[in-house]
Amino acid sequence: MSTLRSWFNIPRGSHFSLANIPFGIISTTPYETPRVAVAIGDHVLDLEIFAANNGFSALSPIQPHQHVFSQPNLNAFAALGRPVHSVVRKYIQSVFADDTPYPEVLKTNSHLQKQAIYPLKEVKTHLPFKIGDYTDFYAGLNHAYNVGVLFRGPANALQPNFKHLPVGYHGRASSVVVSGTPIRRPNGQILENPSAEKKVPTFSPCRKLDIELELGAFVCKANNMGEPVPITEAEESLFGVVLMNDWSARDIQAWEYVPLGPFNSKNFGTTISAWVVLADALKPFLAKGLDNDTELLPYLKEKQTENIYDIKLQVNLKTKTGNSTTLSKTNSRNLLWSFPQMLTHHTITGCPMQVGDLLGSGTISGLEASERGSLLEQNYNGKSSIKLSGGEERKFLEDGDEITITGVCGTNEEALVGFGECSGRIEPALKL
Amino acid sequence: MSTLRSWFNIPRGSHFSLANIPFGIISTTPYETPRVAVAIGDHVLDLEIFAANNGFSALSPIQPHQHVFSQPNLNAFAALGRPVHSVVRKYIQSVFADDTPYPEVLKTNSHLQKQAIYPLKEVKTHLPFKIGDYTDFYAGLNHAYNVGVLFRGPANALQPNFKHLPVGYHGRASSVVVSGTPIRRPNGQILENPSAEKKVPTFSPCRKLDIELELGAFVCKANNMGEPVPITEAEESLFGVVLMNDWSARDIQAWEYVPLGPFNSKNFGTTISAWVVLADALKPFLAKGLDNDTELLPYLKEKQTENIYDIKLQVNLKTKTGNSTTLSKTNSRNLLWSFPQMLTHHTITGCPMQVGDLLGSGTISGLEASERGSLLEQNYNGKSSIKLSGGEERKFLEDGDEITITGVCGTNEEALVGFGECSGRIEPALKL
Repeated sequence: MSTLRSWFNIPRGSHFSLANIPFGIISTTPYETPRVAVAIGDHVLDLEIFAANNGFSALSPIQPHQHVFSQPNLNAFAALGRPVHSVVRKYIQSVFADDTPYPEVLKTNSHLQKQAIYPLKEVKTHLPFKIGDYTDFYAGLNHAYNVGVLFRGPANALQPNFKHLPVGYHGRASSVVVSGTPIRRPNGQILENPSAEKKVPTFSPCRKLDIELELGAFVCKANNMGEPVPITEAEESLFGVVLMNDWSARDIQAWEYVPLGPFNSKNFGTTISAWVVLADALKPFLAKGLDNDTELLPYLKEKQTENIYDIKLQVNLKTKTGNSTTLSKTNSRNLLWSFPQMLTHHTITGCPMQVGDLLGSGTISGLEASERGSLLEQNYNGKSSIKLSGGEERKFLEDGDEITITGVCGTNEEALVGFGECSGRIEPALKL
Repeated sequence: MSTLRSWFNIPRGSHFSLANIPFGIISTTPYETPRVAVAIGDHVLDLEIFAANNGFSALSPIQPHQHVFSQPNLNAFAALGRPVHSVVRKYIQSVFADDTPYPEVLKTNSHLQKQAIYPLKEVKTHLPFKIGDYTDFYAGLNHAYNVGVLFRGPANALQPNFKHLPVGYHGRASSVVVSGTPIRRPNGQILENPSAEKKVPTFSPCRKLDIELELGAFVCKANNMGEPVPITEAEESLFGVVLMNDWSARDIQAWEYVPLGPFNSKNFGTTISAWVVLADALKPFLAKGLDNDTELLPYLKEKQTENIYDIKLQVNLKTKTGNSTTLSKTNSRNLLWSFPQMLTHHTITGCPMQVGDLLGSGTISGLEASERGSLLEQNYNGKSSIKLSGGEERKFLEDGDEITITGVCGTNEEALVGFGECSGRIEPALKL
């Protein structure tokens, strides 16, 4: 892809190049009301201030809708639909372009630059959407296989349904938080001796606190109850993508999850990155995912074979001593199912989606040990230790550990489409 | 309980006696804006109109909050807290009492009676809450046992965790609908021949469409993320109770639910009754539930032994030929866990609850076949047929079938605390 040159200083290697223009919710001091912004280089453009100062004067179709930029979440903007997101993104790109046709809007308007552009490090970011329902899928084939091997052996690692449908479960929307929010280690019921005949749980802080490296996609179009979203229309229903860490309490999960699935083991926190990368910005990075040797039912068949995002992903752990270790490097091409397939499967029963609903991809792992997106897979369910830099070791997370996920598309250092960071630090459990 | 006599005509045997005063959301013609009302006998009192016409003149603490009655859901009223719900209910009871201390408010105010009181059959009811998250538990011991016997035999019917914690899973909030909303039969993936070695699903309308007789409880108090709700405070977080039918597609469920639980089999619709019976109104009907022979962990132990509602429940099926059959008669005392226990367990990890969150009890079944709250249990997973009046038979639901759940507390025909109806009719599947 050719590089869009900007008159604005966008550092080489920035996740937020002119090719990106991700959307988020910010507040500043002293103006503490959350509102819409886009990230660009090391800065953000405050779209409420920009709109109020005729920033959209050259984009007449958006003018009746400018109030969406004063909302405390992206729901209203998202509800305007993919064609509007596309127009707004392209307009902002054109305003920042070196050869902008609208220099008076911002390039030569130092007053508005001062009013509406802030250093990224000086803004507070907020949860980008008011999330109605959150669904977590399990579309990472290698993850499902690795975990299946741990619990059932290689012969039965994948359940018979795995390649026929995107397996998913309903998650907890209220505990989805934005990057940077501390995560408190949960308490719960744990079975200390699973092989004992009499199974009596203990009450304890979680001892197997884990991560799950995922992507999340936000829905921007509602469907009526009873009316499925066909696979040909599913992409139009997806606003954009974030990084996600679906924190998991493995010991609580092991005791609770049969027969109805994970519950308390997942509901204490799910972290997402603050900047939502639009589906438009990601389109050039669609690639072929993993081969599915199963004949799909027609409702799940996509026309395009390049349906999976090619996002380079990385997980870092920083301990409280300050040592930082890369735990995993992988790629979202390790997904068996695309977000449109997940959405279509979700609604095939007529389940109504709402603007702001969140779909998680499931844990993304590659084939190698260094490519695994959960500690469970790396430590063989606690049987071995993971070596950290500085001589430390981990099986699962300790208090004070900070996990940071990063993700980026592309190789042209001047046109990266990245997600920034998705990070969270573990606080000690409450003493109950 | 002694009978509260009213100057207003409340038919003997009404679910909505003066002892009840349930809250709901109504609209009327031509005033179609949804707003708050209470049901009383065969009528409703429109609380927006009542408030606007000085109906609350004798209740000064509520006056600054009267705008809550103009909301399209009960969230704002619920958020005022249990003490306010209690005061408002008692005040309305006193206004309708034969010996009301405030006759000028309504008893002798025929103008306001005409303005604010409508026949129940002339109002449209709406979903009472904007539901953030919906969680469905599995607290019906006999149901869990019956289903366990069907799938695993009597020796392993109950999972080892069942008596140690209220098993639950996150449900789909967006498809919770109010009584009377049609339910479209879902399409989905079904394994026609589960015993075949090669498991290949078929795409089909659900052939095992089932009901689940449940109660639902609404949350009226938020807790911060990371801060569990102790069992001693859980009751204060619960607003009131509705009847619930958690429609279930058993064939879709059988194929999809291992390992992460029910998903599409549950997300096409969950029906709740329109009138929320306040926790205060139900307090006199708390009773001892089923014995739990397991020593509970301290966080789940309640002081009171009478912690389960004594609600007589009934399920009726009306076929499209007009034949009506009582499928089941049971009682909510068949629950092993109370709503406070469910809430406390839900939040023990620090999971944040929000006002308007819904907790489902799980299917309620008695010991006898005639007391079972799902068709699955009554027909032994499709192995036998259920005889209906008029010579019809059913394994699972057919198109046009209408299920109506009713529930009522008490025996004094002039002081019943009932829930009205929770009903839904099956529409044919979409042809895809």
